[in-house]
Amino acid sequence: MSKKLYPFMRNQKIQIKTNTKNYSIFIGSKLINRINKIFISQRLSSPKILIVIDNNIPSKFKSKLFKNLKSKLIKKHFFNANEKNKNQKNIDLIQNILFENRFNRDDCIIAFGGGITGDVVGYCASTYKRGIKFINIPTTLLAQVDSSIGGKTGINNSYGKNLIGSFYQPSLVVSDTDLLKSLNPREVICGYAEILKSSLLDSFQKFKYLDNNFNSIINLKKPFIEKAILNSCKLKKRIVQKDEHESNLRKILNLGHTFAHAYESCLGFSNKLNHGEAVIIGIKNALEFSYQKKLLKSKSYQIIKNHLKKIPLKKNFKQLFNERDVNKIISFMKSDKKNNSEKINIILIKDFGKIKTNWQFDKSTLRKFLSSELKK
Amino acid sequence: MSKKLYPFMRNQKIQIKTNTKNYSIFIGSKLINRINKIFISQRLSSPKILIVIDNNIPSKFKSKLFKNLKSKLIKKHFFNANEKNKNQKNIDLIQNILFENRFNRDDCIIAFGGGITGDVVGYCASTYKRGIKFINIPTTLLAQVDSSIGGKTGINNSYGKNLIGSFYQPSLVVSDTDLLKSLNPREVICGYAEILKSSLLDSFQKFKYLDNNFNSIINLKKPFIEKAILNSCKLKKRIVQKDEHESNLRKILNLGHTFAHAYESCLGFSNKLNHGEAVIIGIKNALEFSYQKKLLKSKSYQIIKNHLKKIPLKKNFKQLFNERDVNKIISFMKSDKKNNSEKINIILIKDFGKIKTNWQFDKSTLRKFLSSELKK
Repeated sequence: MSKKLYPFMRNQKIQIKTNTKNYSIFIGSKLINRINKIFISQRLSSPKILIVIDNNIPSKFKSKLFKNLKSKLIKKHFFNANEKNKNQKNIDLIQNILFENRFNRDDCIIAFGGGITGDVVGYCASTYKRGIKFINIPTTLLAQVDSSIGGKTGINNSYGKNLIGSFYQPSLVVSDTDLLKSLNPREVICGYAEILKSSLLDSFQKFKYLDNNFNSIINLKKPFIEKAILNSCKLKKRIVQKDEHESNLRKILNLGHTFAHAYESCLGFSNKLNHGEAVIIGIKNALEFSYQKKLLKSKSYQIIKNHLKKIPLKKNFKQLFNERDVNKIISFMKSDKKNNSEKINIILIKDFGKIKTNWQFDKSTLRKFLSSELKK
Repeated sequence: MSKKLYPFMRNQKIQIKTNTKNYSIFIGSKLINRINKIFISQRLSSPKILIVIDNNIPSKFKSKLFKNLKSKLIKKHFFNANEKNKNQKNIDLIQNILFENRFNRDDCIIAFGGGITGDVVGYCASTYKRGIKFINIPTTLLAQVDSSIGGKTGINNSYGKNLIGSFYQPSLVVSDTDLLKSLNPREVICGYAEILKSSLLDSFQKFKYLDNNFNSIINLKKPFIEKAILNSCKLKKRIVQKDEHESNLRKILNLGHTFAHAYESCLGFSNKLNHGEAVIIGIKNALEFSYQKKLLKSKSYQIIKNHLKKIPLKKNFKQLFNERDVNKIISFMKSDKKNNSEKINIILIKDFGKIKTNWQFDKSTLRKFLSSELKK
């Protein structure tokens, strides 16, 4: 791949090496304009392509990608990406297109959309004939910094979020930062939640970069947004390479997420609260809980707390929930798939770059904590 | 594990090392009598166990296993194992039991049954919360020598056999040879098909062992049957360790199987033809085709052909199919998931231990071949 000059930052390529697959993540501008060249450079050209397109993507980006995609057979499937459609019915629908067109393991399925589209298409790819080629072109900030990396795929069911799924690595990820221009502020905040989480897992230096450049980043100013994406991807790469199947280290990535998943489930994955907003509230809770458990020093607690206050949320914790929801939230937390016991495992912060993953709490402790947060 | 003395042969343990998991296969007598000790020795005790039991298993074996299984919570699910029930509906049914009882990744699901049960339970395990502990206790000869090793899981759908699935390694396989005593002759032949295939992939020496001891083996006489199982498992271990995800070498294991799967699909997976019988016919076809393509020398061809004649089949190729079925068979062969192009890939025999995996044929060539076989 030729590296084009770019204001402040060149396009970047990160190599991910896992037990099951090695692949590249391309990050930068104007990448979908030369998607076919990227496929060729990665030896990923396929006789047949099914591209699943998130209906939320603006037409100009769709036509740009379609224009540049080359293959003998290109099938398109448009997908209403939302948590309600992230289900087995849509898996069947997409896989039937693959069967009808006799796709085989050397053919390819592309996800062009946000995290939901990537999760659904990745799961389709992993279970179709025990695995076909999967390329991810994430179009949201959340997907570019988080869900496109690491091979988690999955769907929801009546018991909760992402409860059916697999670990299945893509063959390529192409994160074109120009696609972010169409995102609304809530979607940017949604991605920012994972960027912030990454920085907390990483170091004070990475957090400080976000804190110093917060407005530039959430206004998608270059090179700040690209640097933030890159830092986030690199952190995730380091963790995923060490622990592909989430046996231990990878659990730190769930900082704030046990709370977040329960909140989303409790609201039935409604538009009232998107995933990133839930994660921000979850990080706030984890921060507060860590501080109360005397794990986190006052200084770091205050610095992070002040940063969290800057992040605009449509609705905060108390506007979303009340005392009557607490038992429901606890019940969803207990059924979280990362939870391995009768108690509830909460990922806690000791300091920047220092995370505690193995502390388990009684339901009553958490019930008390959530109630007190609602009363604040 | 203590090695008990056993007529002629001690109990055996094979270690499988793959990219994603390392696990043991225990082969021998009276293993289910001390299943709990084996779990402890392998550090595989779990707080919760769901055991899925093939309804075909005689009661005495069920109660023996139940008596020896220890855990805080043991749920039992009885499964009518047949190709029609190897579907998404039964996956949902089993996974719902896991959800209702809040199983997490450290809990365990056990398959106690033949290959169908193992495939279904393995697939359940691989997609439940992206993977929980899976232990396989195969009860048929086919499952003990073939399907329990290598991590292939899957279900059927309206497009064909095993078309939805995953590669997911078990944490343990326990092959108790006493369980084989209840098998009827057709089920023994079914497993023998894979034993024979293994020997052809391995060496003349391994084939000769089968040829010399054929009657003892199909009558399940010790130590012959155990030696045959062990040889088969060892061959499969070598191949799976080198190529877990069937990118290349592992394809040799499909000798006879492109034909076999098409025959089973064509008959709607009916009782007229079981998997092993289909494999034997498939091996016959592959042998004949290899000879016609001048790949296989006359001497080896004759030796294998004579051996195949000894194997009693309920119905042979010509009794099962006629000229009108040929197009349907070809169509199923083309949609086989191992087939990576518009042509049809057939695994061919060059000699004992020498297999050709990359020869692709036009539909018309295969149509002509099958028609001529039907006219013989």
